Order: sequence, then C-alpha cells, then structure tokens
Amino acid sequence: MLLETTKATVGVAGASGYAGGELMRLLAGHPRLAVGAATREPGELAGCDVCVLALPHGASAPLALELEAAGTRVVDMSRDLRGAWIYGLPELHRDRVAGAATVANPGCYATAALLALAPLVESGQVCGTIVVDGKSGVSGAGKAPAEATHLCVAGEGITAYAPIDHPHQAEIERELSGLAGTPVPVTFTPHLAPFSRGLLVTAYAPLAGELDQAAAAELYAERYAGEPFVALVEQPRTQRVRGANVCQIAVHVDTRRRMAVVVAALDNLVKGAAGQAIQNVNLMLGLDEDCGLPVEGLWP
Amino acid sequence: MLLETTKATVGVAGASGYAGGELMRLLAGHPRLAVGAATREPGELAGCDVCVLALPHGASAPLALELEAAGTRVVDMSRDLRGAWIYGLPELHRDRVAGAATVANPGCYATAALLALAPLVESGQVCGTIVVDGKSGVSGAGKAPAEATHLCVAGEGITAYAPIDHPHQAEIERELSGLAGTPVPVTFTPHLAPFSRGLLVTAYAPLAGELDQAAAAELYAERYAGEPFVALVEQPRTQRVRGANVCQIAVHVDTRRRMAVVVAALDNLVKGAAGQAIQNVNLMLGLDEDCGLPVEGLWP
Amino acid sequence: MLLETTKATVGVAGASGYAGGELMRLLAGHPRLAVGAATREPGELAGCDVCVLALPHGASAPLALELEAAGTRVVDMSRDLRGAWIYGLPELHRDRVAGAATVANPGCYATAALLALAPLVESGQVCGTIVVDGKSGVSGAGKAPAEATHLCVAGEGITAYAPIDHPHQAEIERELSGLAGTPVPVTFTPHLAPFSRGLLVTAYAPLAGELDQAAAAELYAERYAGEPFVALVEQPRTQRVRGANVCQIAVHVDTRRRMAVVVAALDNLVKGAAGQAIQNVNLMLGLDEDCGLPVEGLWP
Amino acid sequence: MLLETTKATVGVAGASGYAGGELMRLLAGHPRLAVGAATREPGELAGCDVCVLALPHGASAPLALELEAAGTRVVDMSRDLRGAWIYGLPELHRDRVAGAATVANPGCYATAALLALAPLVESGQVCGTIVVDGKSGVSGAGKAPAEATHLCVAGEGITAYAPIDHPHQAEIERELSGLAGTPVPVTFTPHLAPFSRGLLVTAYAPLAGELDQAAAAELYAERYAGEPFVALVEQPRTQRVRGANVCQIAVHVDTRRRMAVVVAALDNLVKGAAGQAIQNVNLMLGLDEDCGLPVEGLWP
Repeated sequence: MLLETTKATVGVAGASGYAGGELMRLLAGHPRLAVGAATREPGELAGCDVCVLALPHGASAPLALELEAAGTRVVDMSRDLRGAWIYGLPELHRDRVAGAATVANPGCYATAALLALAPLVESGQVCGTIVVDGKSGVSGAGKAPAEATHLCVAGEGITAYAPIDHPHQAEIERELSGLAGTPVPVTFTPHLAPFSRGLLVTAYAPLAGELDQAAAAELYAERYAGEPFVALVEQPRTQRVRGANVCQIAVHVDTRRRMAVVVAALDNLVKGAAGQAIQNVNLMLGLDEDCGLPVEGLWP
Repeated sequence: MLLETTKATVGVAGASGYAGGELMRLLAGHPRLAVGAATREPGELAGCDVCVLALPHGASAPLALELEAAGTRVVDMSRDLRGAWIYGLPELHRDRVAGAATVANPGCYATAALLALAPLVESGQVCGTIVVDGKSGVSGAGKAPAEATHLCVAGEGITAYAPIDHPHQAEIERELSGLAGTPVPVTFTPHLAPFSRGLLVTAYAPLAGELDQAAAAELYAERYAGEPFVALVEQPRTQRVRGANVCQIAVHVDTRRRMAVVVAALDNLVKGAAGQAIQNVNLMLGLDEDCGLPVEGLWP
Repeated sequence: MLLETTKATVGVAGASGYAGGELMRLLAGHPRLAVGAATREPGELAGCDVCVLALPHGASAPLALELEAAGTRVVDMSRDLRGAWIYGLPELHRDRVAGAATVANPGCYATAALLALAPLVESGQVCGTIVVDGKSGVSGAGKAPAEATHLCVAGEGITAYAPIDHPHQAEIERELSGLAGTPVPVTFTPHLAPFSRGLLVTAYAPLAGELDQAAAAELYAERYAGEPFVALVEQPRTQRVRGANVCQIAVHVDTRRRMAVVVAALDNLVKGAAGQAIQNVNLMLGLDEDCGLPVEGLWP
Repeated sequence: MLLETTKATVGVAGASGYAGGELMRLLAGHPRLAVGAATREPGELAGCDVCVLALPHGASAPLALELEAAGTRVVDMSRDLRGAWIYGLPELHRDRVAGAATVANPGCYATAALLALAPLVESGQVCGTIVVDGKSGVSGAGKAPAEATHLCVAGEGITAYAPIDHPHQAEIERELSGLAGTPVPVTFTPHLAPFSRGLLVTAYAPLAGELDQAAAAELYAERYAGEPFVALVEQPRTQRVRGANVCQIAVHVDTRRRMAVVVAALDNLVKGAAGQAIQNVNLMLGLDEDCGLPVEGLWP
C-alpha cells in the first residue's frame, strides 16, 4: 500500500497516439499517480512503479516482455498479450488484476460486449450464437491518415468493415466461453460511424429459457450493484460518456422471440482504453479502484 | 401505355415534409411525369393520373381510401395501408405492382432489410431468428424539432431507440414469412446515427445448411441480375447512395458459426421513400421502371 | 450551333478526383453533352469538341497549352491559367466566355466572393479594404489522405488556415480591381469546417456613401435579375445548395458603421468547380447556358 | 481568505441548461468549491458563499438583483447586467473582479473577440472599423429544440445568422471602446457551424501604423505572459479546447493591406461560460484563480 502523501510513477510508452494522449490527460488529473517517463526506452521505463504501453499491435509485445523480465509491473493496451496475461477487465476479474504484475488491457469493442453480456452468460441464460453489432467512432482507427478516415469518406454516413473474423471476435468468444464454462459462439461485425469518440455495441443473445424483462433488469442490477464504472440507464448514448470511464448498459428482452437485446456505450479511449488501464493500475498498486477516474463526461 | 410525348400528372400530398420534398425534386427531373397538384385536397388530387401521399402515419389512410374510392391510382408512403394494399417493393412484387391501382410503399428500414435477406429466405437457407440491426440518419425522424433530433443530442455519437417492437419489425417479419411460406422471426433494433441522410442495415441470418461464401455470392448475383436499383458491392456505404435510388448490398458468410451477415445501404429518402414511390408509379403507369430515377449519388 | 439531335463530346482529364467525379456525374445527366474521353492522353482528348481539365494545380497547364495549340476548346479548372485565359465566371464575363476557345474556371472561394461583391464594386459603392472570411467543407482539400482531413482532426470543430496570402486572395483582388477600374485591396482568410461539401463566404465591404438596406437589396435584385444560377435569399445556407449549380446570396447593410455584409453560399464542387465548368462549356458551344445544370440541391 | 481545509458553497441557478450543467461538472471536480444549492429559490441561494446564475437572458436580472440586495455574492452568466455590474473578463479586469461582490460574466463570442483584440486596441494599433466573424457550435443556441438546431438543418453545412446588430456586437464595442479610451466601431457576424461545442472568432483589425508580424507576436506574448488561460498557438482550433478553460489565440499581420487577422478559439461552455464563471468566483473568494479549472481539453 502506498503512503497517502506520495505519488506512484507511471511509465508511458506511446504517449503520442490517441489512447496514449488520453492516458497522459487522465494521469495529469490523478491524485496518486504521476508520469515517471514518457518514452519507449526500456531502461527509463523499468524504473517506474508501473508501465502502461499504448503502442501499436505487434510493436508492443517485445517491450512488454522485456519490462516483465525486468520485474516491472506492466499494463499492455495492445492485443499482443491478451490470452497470455491476466485479462484486465476489473468487473470480471477484479481479484486477479489486484494481484497481478502484468495485465493485458481489453479491446474497446470487447469491453463493451463483455460488460453487456456477462450477466446473461454467467447465469446460463444464453443458448446459440450471440450477435454483436458494434459501432465505433473514428478515433478507434488511430491517428495515421488513411482513405478510410478522411472526413469525406468517413463523415456523414456509416459503413461496416471486417464483417467476419475481426480480432475482437475471438477475444469476445474466449472471454464469454470462460465465463460460461462452455464454448459460446459469437458473430461480430464492427461499423465505422461518423464521429470522433465513442463506441456502442448492440448484442443479441438468444435465451435458453423464459427470462422476462423484469427478471433481466433484476439480473443486471444485482450483477453490477456497487460497480462504479457501470451505469444501468434507459438509453445508452455515446454522447453521454465522452471523457468518462463509464460503460452505460440497457437490457431489453424480446420475449416473443426469446432474444435479449443489450446495448452498451462507452468512450473507446477511456473505459475502452486509457481509463481502464488506469483502473487496472489502481488495482495493481492497491489504490482505490476509482481514484482519479472521471465518471461524468462532457455533455453536450 | 402513355404516348411518348405526354407527361402523366402526379398529385402529391405532403410536399412540405422531407420525403415529400424529395419526391418533388425527383419529379422535377422526370421526363414522363409532372406534378399535377401539390395539396391535401381530395378534389384536386383525384384529377391526377396517380397520387403519391407523403403524409404522417395515421393521417394518410383517410385520404388514401377516399382517392381509391374515387378511382384514382394511389401510392401511399405511410405505413397505414401496408398489409392491406399491394406492397410496393418492385424487386419482390414487380408483377403485382404493375397491375395495381393502389400500392403501399415500404418503410425505409424494411426496404433495406428485405432486399438484404430475400435471396436467403426465398431459397430456404435460413433457420432460426434473424437479427436486423439498423442505423439511420436523422432525416428519417422527420422535420419536426424534437429533443432527439437536436444536433447537440443526436450529433457526434450514436444511440439505439425502440430496441423491441419497432413497427418495421412486424413489416419485415410479415414480408419474409410470405417469401418463406413459413413464419420467420426477426429481432430488429434501430439506431440513430449522426448524419442527415442514409440508412444501413446489418442482417444476421442463421443458416440452415452449409452455404459458403462463394455460393452465397452466386445466389445474390443471380437473384439480382438485371435489377437496376440493386448494386452488389464490396462495402456498402451510405455515403455512396446519397440522392440515388439504389440499394447497395454485400453478403458475407461466417461459415464457422453458420451465420450470413448481409449489409445493405440506401438513401432513406430515395430508395427508402420517394424514389421507390416513383419506381412504383413508373410500373403502375406502364413507363420504364427506371425512368427518371438517378442511380449515381452525390459523392463525396 | 449544334443540331438538337446530336451530343457534343467532352474530354475529361482528372475524372478520379472529387471535382472530376462531379463533372462525370453532371455530364451523365446532360442532354446535349457526352463524355468523349476520360484520360490524360492529349491525343485522345484533342478529338473531343471541348475538354475540361480537373487536374491538380501545376499539372494542368502543360496539357492545357498542348490542347490549345492543337486547336481544341479547353476549360481548365486549375488556377494555372487564371489571369492568362478568359476568366470563366459567366455572371461577370458572359460575352467573352461565349466567344472563347480557352477558359480558366474560377476558384471556388473566388466564385462566391466575386458574386457576393460584384454589384457593390461595379457600382463604386466600396472604399477601403474588403474583408472576405471563407468557410469550406473538406472536399475542397481534395481526396488525398492527410492529417488535416482526418475526421478526428477536421471533424466536430473549426479552424482557420492560410490566414494571409491564400492564392484565392490575389484572384479575388485581380477580378474586383478589374470591375472597379482601380485597385481593390482584399484580406481573405479561409476556414476548414467539418462537413464534406459546401462553401460559405462572408464579405465585409466598407461603403463609400450612404447606401441603405433597401437600396442595397435593389442593387442586387437588378444586377442579378434573370441570372439562373444566382439566388437572392434571406439566409444563404450551404445545406440548401448541395449538388446544385447555384450561388445563394444575401446582402445586409450595417448603416451605423457603413459596412455591407454579404453572405454567399455554394457547393464548392458544383458552382465552385464542375457545374461552372459545364456552364462555360454550354456557352462556348452555343448551347443554352443552363442546359443540364440542376438548380435544386439535395435537401436535407 | 478561506481556510485551506474548507470548501466554499456555490449556489447554482439554472443547472439543467447546457452552461449550468457544465458548471455542475466543473464544480464536481473543484477542490475548494462545493455546490451548496441548485435551485431558483432566492432563499436557498442566499445562504451560499456565492451564487452563479445560468438562467436565460431576461429571467436572470430579477433574481440577480434580489440576491445582491440580500448581500450575496453573485456571478450572472446572462447578458442582463453586463454594462451595469463589473465585467468578469479577468484577463482585462482582474483587480476589479477580485474585489467585486457582483460580476457579469461575458458572452462567449465577446470573450473570444476581446481576448483576440485587447493587445492591439490597448496599444492604439487599430484605426477604423474592426470586423469580427464568429463561428459557433450549436450548444450556444441552448437545448430547446428548434428548427435551427435540428441536425438536418444545422448539420453538414454552415450559415450566417443575425448578420447585423447581434447583442454581442454592442458588448464587444463597449469593452473595446473602454480599452481604447475612444469609440471603436465593430461589425460582427455570427455563424452556426455543425458541431456541438466550440467557438472560433476571426477578427480583422485595420492597423494605424507599420506593425509587422514580429512586433505583433511580441505584443501578444508580452500582454499574455503568465496568463494561465490564454494560449498563443500557431493554429487555434476548437477541437483542441473542448472542456478546457482556455482561449487559444494566433495573430497574423497582412502588412501589404495593413490588416491584423487574429484568430481565437475557445469552448463556448467553458472559457465562454461556466469555466469563466468559476474563474471569477475563484477571484472573488480569494482562491487561486486557476483552482479547479482544466487547461487540457479532450483530444481528439
């Protein structure tokens, strides 16, 4: 446990990207954490109390493993070590994260999908293939200019991309299967929507039994009671979580067709990336889990 | 059959709304049709060769029925008479529309969903509940100011609305069940996306058999061969159909999970409303079906 | 004069860009023009009745001059030959365009600024430096991906660029000075606004005398009487000219400060580029000036 | 001076509006201020250490004057008492605000225009009419649904409104004239741009003498040295100040036309409203002026 009067140091690799920049912003307002180094130099990073890596997929693992070998705590935001390291979704794996030295931060789509579906899957309510339809703003594509992110291409309309076999599909399936104790097939299609920040997932889960709306609402209320970063609301809306480390969720049951429709909204750069990384760091260092993390977004 | 040198007259009710305005714009460029009256007065409308009603749901039926009683051809764009009148989706019901005196124009979401799913459902490839996830621009909500359409509420993010039992759900189910000859359950959730025009539907259809990607592509290519207003493309994108009477479609098969993912994009005010109405009028009057209808949208 | 039953052929160089694509779209709907070639090959282009070049600044002049030497009529949309060739703003130079073999199409900002200011400047109402504040959508920057056109950079906000000495500044000054018969200084600052199409110019002209609102309105009404592509409206709005070859204009007079404030809106790809090019072609070939040019835009 | 360990109480009237909501958000993160009451009841408000009124123009003055009469410190965010109370733009009137019991918070456009122009006007560099061209997001129009704020009307384009005699024009003139010690005429035209938050002002000031770019840059650097909430940057951009209490400014000189072009960007709800109100409260209560005020915005 850290003394109240000190700040732990955080090494940041990849501060110039969108997620890394958000990490810097959140750390600047954190009362118990300070940036110890912003660099990709392992030597400089290894001296920090914990490192957070905001590097591109593929470029992250070598540095992450080097820091692990040096005995430094690491949260890796890429997908390189998901499946290998502790999966840093605290609402599902809080105890393991708290004791972990190395944590793989979940993907933004996976965070929303898993928080949307966990109560149903954990309680055995789902049978059959789950459909996850994701809609993300353009910041999820990173800052490198490309045809797909040109305002004239991405603006004022919507498109689907990677309709089959997006990497988050396997991540969602793996985690849901772990929760269920049995394979859970998931079809996932992401869409690029014309705004900068925010992500909405609409998950369609075929129900095994007679769950009705009231029981579903009760299930979610109990599962997420006391969770500081999950908000059960009537109508999740990405506009209401901008800059906040919050996932808004609403569950609906189409009883005639035995289908649960769960909608989840979050800020892909905060609860979907940098905010969740800090949530993991807080747990790893024994700080209050919600320390320094905003729950009110900019509105409008 | 009209003589080449004359123009048939079209009576328009509701020209001040978004769909009605689009109808006026398309009629202004139509070589064989001219606006005969723009009014809600039955007497004035009854003298036209055909009337198109762009009135709010509920307000349309009385006028529509009065014109029918007077022996006037009518295309009604509201949902009031869907199920009662010939369903005006020419790609599914061309012959019936051609001989009809009264036609109910389909809803915008239903048009996209039905064109996306018809080849699979007609050929018996689907078993189980189909998920239809819709994303529409704000013009679909009409021009009346409301909190939900305020730029600060609807802009720069996305939300789901009416997650269960949207009226288009029943419309889609009814039509698909008719195509299949057996009840086809559909779960449909629409979303409000931050742009003005355009609509994208992502349909997830569980497959009965071993359909693979190549066979699915072949199925769609054959079904829509020669259709002037269906375009099979790699990546449907609402930005590419702005102002055009076209539905772009792509079919993908997730063979491991036996799920077809079909994406369809159209302009909700054109192929989803006014353009389709003119397509129906063309058929009803014996004109070329594609007469006066643009297939190239504004880009960018 | 062409026979009514034939179509003149237009050679297009640069059809893959935004302005070139718009040119192709407009030509596809033109009753008296057809695309004869879409290429940069001088040999192929020279056989057409007229060529329109939609090439980048700098790349255009060599081809333009080669075609001129071959005796082919040319409209060049780059700024390479503005000042050298007839300046193709028909509302100012209709007679010269009608007799010209080679025409330089005006810049988009210049078109709006000149149409906004011509009535005041021609009539000697202005004294002192005119301020022109321009706001353009992102399509004006072309289709090449760049940091400045990334949706996360250009979206959801506004910025000024090139606050001094933008190339259109000299173009506006040169033309206004020609109209006035005396040098007219202009300060011009363009802004990048978060939409795809459209351009709005707000021009502030210090008045020499006691012009009041009624006299200014009269001046504009007389100057633009009968012009098919200038619309005097209460509130110019880029959203109302999308896809149309129209410049909306409103003049306001701040009598206490002796300042005219003129607002002009157009579609930068149509009246600001491809539509105006066709307007020039129509004149050069002796067709009706408004032939094939839409005056109603998509709305909303 | 407040003791370090206590929080002063702030009464908030109008918390349900956009500016009032932003005030609540900022107060929630303020280490020395707490919301004492959120109500329009004078009795409840009068017990707070200071009140901030975020009420509509016209509705604010009666409550403001009643609280003043009761001896309560007040910051009024409406325009009702501008000209009567101390004008709360700390960068211009810091000392007077620090000693004031009642402060009128400036308008959002006026804040940007005055910070953009103060260095030039105070130093006597300007002669003639200044042009101020403003571009604001839609949140400045408030949350009440209206045709003008409908996404289909306000989105994807830009328009000018109130081209003459907007109330901020008089406010800007009055303050600049006070700084100059002589009347300074200003023509101001605001525009509605298609985003939610943010405001950019482009000010064109005719120069009396030979000020060049280097001297202008020096003038601004000296004038704003040490100001925590004014940032001199190369390219002000509303996207970079979202949620921050910062005004970004850049000065350019068009020496040939003797015109200074000054661009200023701020978040209309923060430095243009709620953040500036807290800045004033901090001064009035003897707190550090920058206490609890973010200077880094959300990006992207």
